[in-house]
Amino acid sequence: MYDETFMREAIKLSRHCIEKNAGGPFGVVIVRNGVEVGRGYNMVTINNDPTAHAEIVAIRDACKNLNTFKLDDCEIYTSCEPCPMCFGAIYWARIKKIYYAADRFDAEKAGFDDSFIYKEFDLSDNRRSIPAEQHCKQEAVKVFCEWEKLATRVDY
Amino acid sequence: MYDETFMREAIKLSRHCIEKNAGGPFGVVIVRNGVEVGRGYNMVTINNDPTAHAEIVAIRDACKNLNTFKLDDCEIYTSCEPCPMCFGAIYWARIKKIYYAADRFDAEKAGFDDSFIYKEFDLSDNRRSIPAEQHCKQEAVKVFCEWEKLATRVDY
Repeated sequence: MYDETFMREAIKLSRHCIEKNAGGPFGVVIVRNGVEVGRGYNMVTINNDPTAHAEIVAIRDACKNLNTFKLDDCEIYTSCEPCPMCFGAIYWARIKKIYYAADRFDAEKAGFDDSFIYKEFDLSDNRRSIPAEQHCKQEAVKVFCEWEKLATRVDY
Repeated sequence: MYDETFMREAIKLSRHCIEKNAGGPFGVVIVRNGVEVGRGYNMVTINNDPTAHAEIVAIRDACKNLNTFKLDDCEIYTSCEPCPMCFGAIYWARIKKIYYAADRFDAEKAGFDDSFIYKEFDLSDNRRSIPAEQHCKQEAVKVFCEWEKLATRVDY
């Protein structure tokens, strides 16, 4: 159930990025059963890490705190609608609900590429601004076959 | 320009995941001017980190090695088409070209959700398997306005 306390905390963390000049103004809190289990703010420029968006930092923090790679009983409060990278991360972490404040269009107005990257998903490989080519498919699929047969494998 | 040596190395790294039981069978090499500058393999289950896909690990590694948050003169060789999270990360890192071996459909056959998550992007908030709700938009947008006025801000 939505609890505005956590959203205000996420927004407070987004302001923290400005105060620390850590990265873009984005903050996140992850909650399980009404208790905060992880948090993060954007640290892209301060850490030289383009993947250090608030959601990624918070998911890593919550997983570390809970000693798991699955947050399926958790909710995420984020000061802005997740970008495609963070949206994907939320799916892989199996988070059950997303609460967001600003959205991709607000982020776009503030100079961020969230909306642009979302649009790139709808284009075919050769029409995207970052082109992609496929090579050596069979060799890579062979490794997938080995994985499928692996008795000790841990699914995620 | 495509160099098969790096693709074979990425595939070798994907097999390494199986040998080490580190995570799913995915490997990545990042290259600048014909020289490897970063690498990674999937460490989701061994590190309890759902964001530790090969691409994310390799991007963080290359950024650390090159002391930058921008890889705009680099190419990425990945043993499998990037999932939405990693695709987003590649955009944020400004990598200029993607070479991949297996694709999202091969990954799906091996039990991974890449293809499923791609399909979720096309659905509206309330039709997705992870629902999202918007709250407190104005308060978050206020922080974006502060960011836009910030003289010392570092754009990325």
